[in-house]
Amino acid sequence: MENSTLMLNCAVLGATGYTGAELTKLLLAHPHVRVTLLTTRQEKPIALREVLPSVSKDTKFEITPYSFDAVKKKADVVFLCLPHTEAMTAAEQLLAAGKVVIDLSADFRLRDRKIYEKWYGVNHVAPQYLSKAVYGLCEIYREKIKKADLIANPGCYPTGPSLALIPLLKKKLIDPLSIIINAASGVSGAGKKLVTATQFCEVDGNYSAYKVNKHQHTPEIEQTLSAAAGKPVKITFVPHLLPLDRGILATIYAGTAPKAAEALIRKTLEAAYAHAPFVRIKPAGQYPCLRDVQHTNFCDIGVSVNDETGRVVIITAIDNLVKGAAGQAVQNMNLRFGFPEEAGLL
Amino acid sequence: MENSTLMLNCAVLGATGYTGAELTKLLLAHPHVRVTLLTTRQEKPIALREVLPSVSKDTKFEITPYSFDAVKKKADVVFLCLPHTEAMTAAEQLLAAGKVVIDLSADFRLRDRKIYEKWYGVNHVAPQYLSKAVYGLCEIYREKIKKADLIANPGCYPTGPSLALIPLLKKKLIDPLSIIINAASGVSGAGKKLVTATQFCEVDGNYSAYKVNKHQHTPEIEQTLSAAAGKPVKITFVPHLLPLDRGILATIYAGTAPKAAEALIRKTLEAAYAHAPFVRIKPAGQYPCLRDVQHTNFCDIGVSVNDETGRVVIITAIDNLVKGAAGQAVQNMNLRFGFPEEAGLL
Amino acid sequence: MENSTLMLNCAVLGATGYTGAELTKLLLAHPHVRVTLLTTRQEKPIALREVLPSVSKDTKFEITPYSFDAVKKKADVVFLCLPHTEAMTAAEQLLAAGKVVIDLSADFRLRDRKIYEKWYGVNHVAPQYLSKAVYGLCEIYREKIKKADLIANPGCYPTGPSLALIPLLKKKLIDPLSIIINAASGVSGAGKKLVTATQFCEVDGNYSAYKVNKHQHTPEIEQTLSAAAGKPVKITFVPHLLPLDRGILATIYAGTAPKAAEALIRKTLEAAYAHAPFVRIKPAGQYPCLRDVQHTNFCDIGVSVNDETGRVVIITAIDNLVKGAAGQAVQNMNLRFGFPEEAGLL
Amino acid sequence: MENSTLMLNCAVLGATGYTGAELTKLLLAHPHVRVTLLTTRQEKPIALREVLPSVSKDTKFEITPYSFDAVKKKADVVFLCLPHTEAMTAAEQLLAAGKVVIDLSADFRLRDRKIYEKWYGVNHVAPQYLSKAVYGLCEIYREKIKKADLIANPGCYPTGPSLALIPLLKKKLIDPLSIIINAASGVSGAGKKLVTATQFCEVDGNYSAYKVNKHQHTPEIEQTLSAAAGKPVKITFVPHLLPLDRGILATIYAGTAPKAAEALIRKTLEAAYAHAPFVRIKPAGQYPCLRDVQHTNFCDIGVSVNDETGRVVIITAIDNLVKGAAGQAVQNMNLRFGFPEEAGLL
Repeated sequence: MENSTLMLNCAVLGATGYTGAELTKLLLAHPHVRVTLLTTRQEKPIALREVLPSVSKDTKFEITPYSFDAVKKKADVVFLCLPHTEAMTAAEQLLAAGKVVIDLSADFRLRDRKIYEKWYGVNHVAPQYLSKAVYGLCEIYREKIKKADLIANPGCYPTGPSLALIPLLKKKLIDPLSIIINAASGVSGAGKKLVTATQFCEVDGNYSAYKVNKHQHTPEIEQTLSAAAGKPVKITFVPHLLPLDRGILATIYAGTAPKAAEALIRKTLEAAYAHAPFVRIKPAGQYPCLRDVQHTNFCDIGVSVNDETGRVVIITAIDNLVKGAAGQAVQNMNLRFGFPEEAGLL
Repeated sequence: MENSTLMLNCAVLGATGYTGAELTKLLLAHPHVRVTLLTTRQEKPIALREVLPSVSKDTKFEITPYSFDAVKKKADVVFLCLPHTEAMTAAEQLLAAGKVVIDLSADFRLRDRKIYEKWYGVNHVAPQYLSKAVYGLCEIYREKIKKADLIANPGCYPTGPSLALIPLLKKKLIDPLSIIINAASGVSGAGKKLVTATQFCEVDGNYSAYKVNKHQHTPEIEQTLSAAAGKPVKITFVPHLLPLDRGILATIYAGTAPKAAEALIRKTLEAAYAHAPFVRIKPAGQYPCLRDVQHTNFCDIGVSVNDETGRVVIITAIDNLVKGAAGQAVQNMNLRFGFPEEAGLL
Repeated sequence: MENSTLMLNCAVLGATGYTGAELTKLLLAHPHVRVTLLTTRQEKPIALREVLPSVSKDTKFEITPYSFDAVKKKADVVFLCLPHTEAMTAAEQLLAAGKVVIDLSADFRLRDRKIYEKWYGVNHVAPQYLSKAVYGLCEIYREKIKKADLIANPGCYPTGPSLALIPLLKKKLIDPLSIIINAASGVSGAGKKLVTATQFCEVDGNYSAYKVNKHQHTPEIEQTLSAAAGKPVKITFVPHLLPLDRGILATIYAGTAPKAAEALIRKTLEAAYAHAPFVRIKPAGQYPCLRDVQHTNFCDIGVSVNDETGRVVIITAIDNLVKGAAGQAVQNMNLRFGFPEEAGLL
Repeated sequence: MENSTLMLNCAVLGATGYTGAELTKLLLAHPHVRVTLLTTRQEKPIALREVLPSVSKDTKFEITPYSFDAVKKKADVVFLCLPHTEAMTAAEQLLAAGKVVIDLSADFRLRDRKIYEKWYGVNHVAPQYLSKAVYGLCEIYREKIKKADLIANPGCYPTGPSLALIPLLKKKLIDPLSIIINAASGVSGAGKKLVTATQFCEVDGNYSAYKVNKHQHTPEIEQTLSAAAGKPVKITFVPHLLPLDRGILATIYAGTAPKAAEALIRKTLEAAYAHAPFVRIKPAGQYPCLRDVQHTNFCDIGVSVNDETGRVVIITAIDNLVKGAAGQAVQNMNLRFGFPEEAGLL
């Protein structure tokens, strides 16, 4: 039953980054939410309007230095927009204090501690929660999310390709060993830290691949696709940096099973997402673009099969800060607390 | 023997488009060239400085309406920067008049008239020249180009992938049936015609695929790769539009032959282009970017092999207006007339 | 008394342009509005999602060819997002039918028909309405707007500078003969028509002035400022085109009256807009930027006085499609129908 | 008499920044120059191709840690692309060693040590050279430059406005007390240091003023204009940051003297620069844009007079890295060593 009267007390830890600010914006406009605390790892309070200029002129809201006691006192649900490794420490404390935690970092996405430690190069300090965390890919794990106290919000790159490929793998319409994901992301995906690679003069007018065969989202995608395929999936994943602010377009290539014609693949996706408000399948001959999904929680998907090569091209588009992070986190909260799935997102 | 004293009389037909203007700029700075004629399909003459603002302040050069007689009289070599179908008509006349023709359109790139007519949707009016035209991929067909009177300058998309894949196909290091080319181009590749798709507000901050499985450069790439492989090659080719002015980055995926490790693939490419001044192979762990090749005639190539998936990722970058069009045309002229290959291009 | 229960039936004429689409988006999310009709000048209906991809997945809304009868039947208030000259014809009919008209074109902004005809180069066909139209600069003409049946929504360039200068002219803090407005706009200000000047390759990486001393918004600004100054004001106005999508930053220069120090000027602006939810005055040493106002209805204003030159620099920033067009139109509707001024805009 | 046989030995100190790399590129292509040394303040040598990817494939050139002895031994002329304060220390040493120094920093531009120290906030350690330094605004100080051993290359912002205003001030066609310079620069003007303000996500799609009434180029412009006017000139100068890589457009406003009609102003500028290869005056009704001057050493100037307001609008455009820095430095070298003024620049 949907819950529409509760006002939920929410805290955002790490509200000054791109994701934290986007999430704060969504929560402030959410009909069933009271934002009670915003925190920063910096030492001094910051006016909310410094990081979120679109807030009401008269708001006096401040982002304050992190204090566990304040979070404990003020929030029912806590969103972690912290760097990986910091998130797991905070999550452990907050879960022990009975909070619902929605973690936007990578710390609880991988079920296998060794894979986490290999790809992220750090020790996991709260491995006891890895098996309890629910992977928050809303359209796929809806029922589990409804009961979860620790939701691992998916990475920005995995979201689109996972949504596109899971129904096809489940129906065995594509060859699980043939998957290639060529993805391109806007610069906000890299966060706010100062590095040469995200300076304007390096990015503007430029385009390049990075972390070829080495991006840390690779095992996350493989874990999700393996679960859908019922056997181990290894992918080729090459991310690229686009000279634009926000959005991820993934162009996915896979071999099709015999008789898996374009119409069948499209129909399978349409059926899988018939009741999903945020997944849109494009008609034949049309493909997603970033403009259509920026500042929205949509994931658009287009399909083209080439009968001569026996390969399908699937293209997905999302806003990395919304469906790829803050929007999906709100959607997870909606599912967990029985709000309408679209609340605050349309 | 290199020819360094001749001053060659050159004409550019279609000098007002992006490619024509870039070519004119290169030719004006070329040490062995005299630009004697620039023409337009428009009815009135246009000052050169209108389309090429970087020319010397005092130049009085005009781009004049096309006249066959003027071309016949003034030029030894004629560059065609005309739309396809217009190029073949002009070429036929000019070849009959004894000119050397370097055609930057698609009209003489495909040897099979039926494939041309299928992909371009028009009849070919000068099919007798299809077998005489030499495909102007300089590094591969150097010797044939030296004797050609009709040079079909390669398309912008085919140039980078062809250079990268030909040596590997010849040495049988990759599976010819597994090739996927994911390419992304700057907007100048679409030319100057007024269409909604290239309006600033449609392109800026946006990114999308187009002509998925349907781009007319597909058969051109397949023809070139089939020749190298010694058997028919079918590829998957998906072009994308980048929100930037110039440059094409192609991210190519292929299955590797057994034992074709990354080092062997890189070494093969280095050996193939050891004496090619414009092809640069990146060291291990480094990949091309558009900034490095914009406004140059370079083709940069990077390689990464994933041993788990048995797939190689090859990334190529060129400037679509230079190595992908005008620069390669000048390089073809240099080869044809015995100038140093780099003349006017470094 | 504020009216919060009425559901107002709204029509948007010209819903396919940038302004019409933005307005439709705002109205669809407005708590007191029912969008009952969207029209186009094209001959065939267009799915709303074609021009507004962010709408709900299941919407079946169509933009239909204009029909006066349909508008008459379905709408209480009609927004005109039509080219100038078309707007005046439609307005005349709709006013006669008893509708409230909010006109986003230039047709009813200038009170003097001759000035309109001089700057726009066409005859005015509904001059009888010029004196009845109320200029919809919300923060300045709030009381008149509440009673108006024809509201002339201000131009995108005039909005920011008018808001900044009116309080200063009224208090005689600046010299009305010294005003220079150097403005820069994003490309969406030019609308969707296909012209070379707004092609990506012309705009990207470029910046230039246009219509120097000749822009048609000049007399609109002069009319507004003259009313505030109580005497004729002539300005210098130079618009520029920025390589970005949306936003107008105006950098305004004026001589200050004796003793008009920066603190007094800032205080005057703060007092003038103390109760205006959408006008924000920056503290000393801070200046507006486009990022802070994009996708919002805010007008940000910054001030710097140089005591040596006796000149004030005032900088204003708005989103040209929101506060400079669709947002201000909604704000006008809110005022006219007694809704909270911020309804649907925060 | 022009000197065309000498091969000059040049060193660039600080070759890794945007200006240093641009200068190196120009010098490598210069017909009368031998680049003998490139230095960096970093501790390890850097391959030239790391900072200048357009160099020939086989170049082994390295940028090496600074060593006075190496400079002394290898260079006749030394270009300083160093931060201000570092430049004056190096210059003093090099001048004492008999080198010709072309300083691209601000250290020797201002003749009054106190003004330098006020605006730059540091002590001047080589004030004895302030009166010996020649301000390298080529078109204005040609004769002095020919004999100078220390040339202070002008700042990027001052170059365009100074060229435009000097002839008008000399002829008393504009009011020297009325000058307002509204300038907008590409991001490369800020150099390569890592700051939030030049991160892609801060700049892209954004536009804003900065250092309003406080930019350190203000006294440099005032010094130059005062010399031309024959009396102290105080200006209003507001710089803005554009979302693009390179170029400065300055929109200048000034009151005109009685009878100083547009035609007279244009004619005066045309006469002043009739023999200047890099200054181009636009015909009536046309204005400069950044595209026309990027990657060139041109300064384009457009003029519009409004007879009603008695004000002239003058618009200048340059490439900040070329005419605003490296190109002008080469032009200064050409003048100083008797090469053709355009050598290496067209």
